[in-house]
Amino acid sequence: MLVIRNIRTMRNCVRKVKGEKKIIGFIPTMGALHQGHLSLINRARRDCESVVISIFVNPTQFGPREDFKKYPRNFAADKRICQKAKVDFLFIPRVKEIYPPDYCSYVRVKGLEDKLCGTFRQGCFQGVATIVSKLFNIVQPDIAYFGQKDFQQVVIIKRMVRDLNIPVKIKVLPIVREKDGLAMSSRNKYLNKQQRKEASILFQSLQLAKEMLKKGERSSVKVIAQIKKMIKKIPSAKIDYVSIVNPESLEDVRLMSEKILVALAVWIGKARLIDNMIINETGI
Amino acid sequence: MLVIRNIRTMRNCVRKVKGEKKIIGFIPTMGALHQGHLSLINRARRDCESVVISIFVNPTQFGPREDFKKYPRNFAADKRICQKAKVDFLFIPRVKEIYPPDYCSYVRVKGLEDKLCGTFRQGCFQGVATIVSKLFNIVQPDIAYFGQKDFQQVVIIKRMVRDLNIPVKIKVLPIVREKDGLAMSSRNKYLNKQQRKEASILFQSLQLAKEMLKKGERSSVKVIAQIKKMIKKIPSAKIDYVSIVNPESLEDVRLMSEKILVALAVWIGKARLIDNMIINETGI
Repeated sequence: MLVIRNIRTMRNCVRKVKGEKKIIGFIPTMGALHQGHLSLINRARRDCESVVISIFVNPTQFGPREDFKKYPRNFAADKRICQKAKVDFLFIPRVKEIYPPDYCSYVRVKGLEDKLCGTFRQGCFQGVATIVSKLFNIVQPDIAYFGQKDFQQVVIIKRMVRDLNIPVKIKVLPIVREKDGLAMSSRNKYLNKQQRKEASILFQSLQLAKEMLKKGERSSVKVIAQIKKMIKKIPSAKIDYVSIVNPESLEDVRLMSEKILVALAVWIGKARLIDNMIINETGI
Repeated sequence: MLVIRNIRTMRNCVRKVKGEKKIIGFIPTMGALHQGHLSLINRARRDCESVVISIFVNPTQFGPREDFKKYPRNFAADKRICQKAKVDFLFIPRVKEIYPPDYCSYVRVKGLEDKLCGTFRQGCFQGVATIVSKLFNIVQPDIAYFGQKDFQQVVIIKRMVRDLNIPVKIKVLPIVREKDGLAMSSRNKYLNKQQRKEASILFQSLQLAKEMLKKGERSSVKVIAQIKKMIKKIPSAKIDYVSIVNPESLEDVRLMSEKILVALAVWIGKARLIDNMIINETGI
């Protein structure tokens, strides 16, 4: 595995690999790798002849009072995971090369960026769309892999790729969960023991939604109310939102008569956790 | 020469050409081709093994009261010019495929888009940056060619390419002028005989600026005043702006102690004409 710290070297490697007509699979990450990332790497390893992973804690997708500085960074462990998973190139660029002082270009996906998490994290998805389009231009992958956990991110990137005609295929893999259902996330590290236990309420509440649909409930208002009621039993929980939306447009759904996305963002202590579930209108 | 009307076919051709390891040169245009465009095509023909030109009158770079509808379109003549100049692929996509109904992704180059023409044509350069980045993603050229006449466009595209790490080289070719100095432009067709004569004042005023620098003038305020005075002698002229700026940052320059750009936008009748000149501080 080659560890690459600058854009020029990454480009040269890409050129070489493309010259050999190898299919490139790419996993952009912010590091602090866990089983969720690993599922993406493993899939890329199966699909592609060359696997590139990037680790870049992207400052432009954090708000001024968010956790950019304390976001978990553990390069040594990440490197071991990548090596073991047979990654070919680990790209870990420096902030000052990615965003030079007079940097001023941004990609926006209007109409999708201001919903769900975008309401609470202003500018976040402009940061995401911009860094992902930069990384796509540097790595020029055939396929890029994302986890369903960051559902809004996935919807925005898919739309950006379609709208801007970016020549890459996006593959989305299912959420990887802990035994108690908690979605794997680098931010789970912010939880203390008690909070970690309580955090499983997020998954439980999504399952409750599924149950309600299965039993014939069609009012999203009622389902949302039940989810909120359940989460509020946890004293350390603070709900940012619980929403039921169309999985493509991210528009609110009132009457659940088709495939819907239940998405939520909840603070447990100092960790802002997100989770989601796509549910067929019949509850499957 | 192959005329291509849809993205899928263009992509297939690009894949084939890239498979043959040919260098692709690309000239994005809005059609109504003239000697200025031809100079770009000829240069691409010399530099590259495969030449792609696009013709697309991009609606998103026109304001609501601008000339999108009446912008000159003459596909038959354009096609002949391209054939004669040995273009390989003429890409002429349809608006509805470039901007599907739920289109919502945009590229912005903040800090450069709101200067000069951007002050008068709000949203114009977001439209330019977006369509050019789309065309780059479709055509995937090695080199793209632009004319210096649209100076701000060139600065914005260069910055976008650098910032977003787009794998393309930008080549900028000099302004091609009529015998009397008027910069070639598709919009010159809007001029009647009298206006066409008067329009040469734009180039004359740029030469005046050059002369003043040569004679030692260092105050941009004074040079701008003289240019405006000269242009105002033409009754049909209406000045949008006359500016002297740094050619990279597009920031106003007061004391001209380095390479500067004199740029202007002037209405002559119904034609909004732009012109510019890069002048060394010594007037060369």
